[in-house]
Amino acid sequence: MTIAPRPLTPLDVRLACRSGQWNAASTAGHCAGFVQANLVVLPSKYADDFRALCARNPVPCPLLGETVAPGNPTLPPHLAEDCDVRTDAPAYNVYVGGNLVATKKDIVDEWRDDSVCFLIGCSFSFEAALTAGGLTPRQIEISKNVPMYKTRAPLAAAGVFSGRMVVSMRPYLPSQVELARDLTRPFVRAHGEPVAWGAKGAAELGIDDPLGESPDFGEASEVREGEVPVYWGCGVTPQNVIMESKLPDCVLGHAPGHMLVLDLRDEEVCA
Amino acid sequence: MTIAPRPLTPLDVRLACRSGQWNAASTAGHCAGFVQANLVVLPSKYADDFRALCARNPVPCPLLGETVAPGNPTLPPHLAEDCDVRTDAPAYNVYVGGNLVATKKDIVDEWRDDSVCFLIGCSFSFEAALTAGGLTPRQIEISKNVPMYKTRAPLAAAGVFSGRMVVSMRPYLPSQVELARDLTRPFVRAHGEPVAWGAKGAAELGIDDPLGESPDFGEASEVREGEVPVYWGCGVTPQNVIMESKLPDCVLGHAPGHMLVLDLRDEEVCA
Repeated sequence: MTIAPRPLTPLDVRLACRSGQWNAASTAGHCAGFVQANLVVLPSKYADDFRALCARNPVPCPLLGETVAPGNPTLPPHLAEDCDVRTDAPAYNVYVGGNLVATKKDIVDEWRDDSVCFLIGCSFSFEAALTAGGLTPRQIEISKNVPMYKTRAPLAAAGVFSGRMVVSMRPYLPSQVELARDLTRPFVRAHGEPVAWGAKGAAELGIDDPLGESPDFGEASEVREGEVPVYWGCGVTPQNVIMESKLPDCVLGHAPGHMLVLDLRDEEVCA
Repeated sequence: MTIAPRPLTPLDVRLACRSGQWNAASTAGHCAGFVQANLVVLPSKYADDFRALCARNPVPCPLLGETVAPGNPTLPPHLAEDCDVRTDAPAYNVYVGGNLVATKKDIVDEWRDDSVCFLIGCSFSFEAALTAGGLTPRQIEISKNVPMYKTRAPLAAAGVFSGRMVVSMRPYLPSQVELARDLTRPFVRAHGEPVAWGAKGAAELGIDDPLGESPDFGEASEVREGEVPVYWGCGVTPQNVIMESKLPDCVLGHAPGHMLVLDLRDEEVCA
């Protein structure tokens, strides 16, 4: 007789990250049913502009919440108990002057007494619904990271922030697109339904690589005969905006695919 | 001694429209301080999709509210008392199959027992703030309708609705752009700050006519030496989306520039 191991809780993952013992290639597939968040850490002087960016562009930038006060790295308890955003995600990106200068296991040294961390919803929240509906995302089937593409679709500018949308792509048959839309529509704070699809959608978004062979982030997927690309808003968008906005300050984010696992449940990001 | 006439109240304008006595070229400039709304009337089967379109694209489509129940043409009292949306705007557009088929003084004959009317915020709400800040919009100075342009910027699709953003344009000197942004930013349910500006903004939005000589709606403005175009999200966007989405049904809207005047005050569409 074997005893199945207890599945990891969100707190287990956070504590493993905090103690340096987390080594998984991605947080995808861990803590099924719990929300994983994209992170953006900014000096508090930019906080109002960033909240406005999210309010004006809720599809790529659905704001789930933020740290409790400038300089305090903890979250409201409904998002995550016993959480330090400086150490509890697996990996972080460090930007200075709009350029990626480092990827690190924690951001204790970079955190300042005016830092604010924002949490952005993630498409991992709707992938279980796609799978349950018979539309398993291809990158899960082939064990890769989801492919992400920069678009030419401009966000609505907000204060110091302006830039273009990033999308994630999952290939489906044209006959499956309406079901994929219906299954993901309820996840309003996790990008919701696709923004566009097919050759027309790729053209509208200004994606020159509709077969998806050269994603800007993540890994190329496998587009099979007859399938079309289906594009969802992506939580990497704020990091793209930070790069395009060329803020002079040090700005931090999670490393794509290495998310902060929250105590919030997937159904809580639904309408 | 002359006695100044009492300024028109929103109810005065609505009653004048209802009785066929309203003849002004536009509602712009009337009832200062009160919100004027863009209208979209749809069969109730599309109501959820339209609410989602607005939630996903709040800059061009800020939803202020809707009629109290399908088939009932009245509004919640905080928006407008004694109001019949079928008669109380000066003029209406009628679309069938995505084509504009008529412009009418009322939509009593087109209103059905499943019709729902949606109210969308309007940039008229922030023009008094621009004027008070020393940035009188050019089209007010020269007594024209504001110029509006179709863009290539895709909205995030929602159910049956997909299409491109429409923007309004006001020219300013580059040195005035930051003040124009600051003055309009608070009006979050009236399009808020500009989405883009200057030659770079025109290119990002895919506007091939940056001097603004051939607007798609309204009238050409007057761009003076050294000025750049500044673009705001526009409440004509939903009508553009309705045309692009080619719904087979009869869909109604206000005639651009001929708005429904509400009892809601401009400060109530601010953050």
